[in-house]
Amino acid sequence: MNPTIDLLKSHRSIRKFTDDPVTDEQVREIVAAGQAAATSSNVQAVSVIQVNQPAMRASMAELAGGQPWISAAGAFLVWCADLRRSGAACAKAGGKFETGMTEHFLIATVDVALAAQNAVVAAESMGLGICYIGGLRNNPAQVSELLALPEQVYPVFGLCLGYPDQDPVIKPRLSLDAVLMQDTYSAEQQDAHFDDYNERLGHYYKTRTGGTKVSQWTDEMKKLVGKESRPHMREFLTKQGFTMR
Amino acid sequence: MNPTIDLLKSHRSIRKFTDDPVTDEQVREIVAAGQAAATSSNVQAVSVIQVNQPAMRASMAELAGGQPWISAAGAFLVWCADLRRSGAACAKAGGKFETGMTEHFLIATVDVALAAQNAVVAAESMGLGICYIGGLRNNPAQVSELLALPEQVYPVFGLCLGYPDQDPVIKPRLSLDAVLMQDTYSAEQQDAHFDDYNERLGHYYKTRTGGTKVSQWTDEMKKLVGKESRPHMREFLTKQGFTMR
Repeated sequence: MNPTIDLLKSHRSIRKFTDDPVTDEQVREIVAAGQAAATSSNVQAVSVIQVNQPAMRASMAELAGGQPWISAAGAFLVWCADLRRSGAACAKAGGKFETGMTEHFLIATVDVALAAQNAVVAAESMGLGICYIGGLRNNPAQVSELLALPEQVYPVFGLCLGYPDQDPVIKPRLSLDAVLMQDTYSAEQQDAHFDDYNERLGHYYKTRTGGTKVSQWTDEMKKLVGKESRPHMREFLTKQGFTMR
Repeated sequence: MNPTIDLLKSHRSIRKFTDDPVTDEQVREIVAAGQAAATSSNVQAVSVIQVNQPAMRASMAELAGGQPWISAAGAFLVWCADLRRSGAACAKAGGKFETGMTEHFLIATVDVALAAQNAVVAAESMGLGICYIGGLRNNPAQVSELLALPEQVYPVFGLCLGYPDQDPVIKPRLSLDAVLMQDTYSAEQQDAHFDDYNERLGHYYKTRTGGTKVSQWTDEMKKLVGKESRPHMREFLTKQGFTMR
């Protein structure tokens, strides 16, 4: 359709990087592109912490459940939802921060994801590869301590950036018709596509692993939502001041 | 830096559209570009409902607090966080969906925002203008009823798409140094930029409104986080099955 859409559609996670450096100028350009994304009520509830010290990187890699590419990447950014800054601005204007609202939590989390995705598109347009690191939420309290995050701030995910040293194929997605509906929701329309997607995804894994990985989407979802997931998150968020009222 | 980054940095919300249609083919291309974004554990917890019926659009415009551009836009999409589909896939694989986890809620919400932002970039690359509609969360229960959303699905935001019939200037953002930090969080570094940003944002509003709007960022934040925000959200989410355990 056009080169930007071609770029968007060519995304795949990169977990192996060359030694070529990602410069400070690039990181600044990437984060600035992130800032240009829409933000709810101009709250800009995003803080980005670039982690440089090798020892900190190594700790992050371990806390994320053993992800060595966090150390190897040209740059590593932690994207935080930040309401502390808005609270401080509110106080400067003579107000009192009403903490703990679910809606504010939602606004901040969405703001971070919009900004990060813009940053990802910017990075990929420079020829960089990226990998989101949701695994930081395996140990969010320790990650927050390492980064000295105050209350009203939490790490949503990490982001590895670097020049790709691998060229994986693009992972197939659910059929568009399993996702896009007209006027009202239709479970039937969606679920009719499970078999087709199982087959396509199964083929992708088989090809990619030389036949060793046999998995389908329905199996993946059983693993993901068929059990508790990071059950510490609620308590962690509460401690950080996100009490969800 | 490059045309993609120029595009990202030229974003501004558009609320006035020409009568030129947005075609089904364009919408499909835009949502497919959204699907190409990263997704946590391949959950793809995104459903998009394109609202076509004029009466439904009018209701949405009203429920969002009076936003007539929802009716006037060439296309209007509601972006929903959807764990129902994953739950159905889990059941198909013989599992039992563990509902109510905060982490699953977070994963789904982030997935939606990443996909939507990719879609926005795709739309803007076609020359379309966009406007996110967080106002759907003013009345999320009524919106969900109109769209027949089942449990484990909630509307995160709407998105207006259309050819711009206005050319607003780009809204200034916080200084990059108020947002990007090295190795550890620094409230001091951030808050040193409030005065500068107040001045730049105040100038933007003054210029844009011919002097009638006098507002600074700290005032905006007082209005946003200095009071309760959409206090119904927690109960609504609980009713939809997002119990946040």
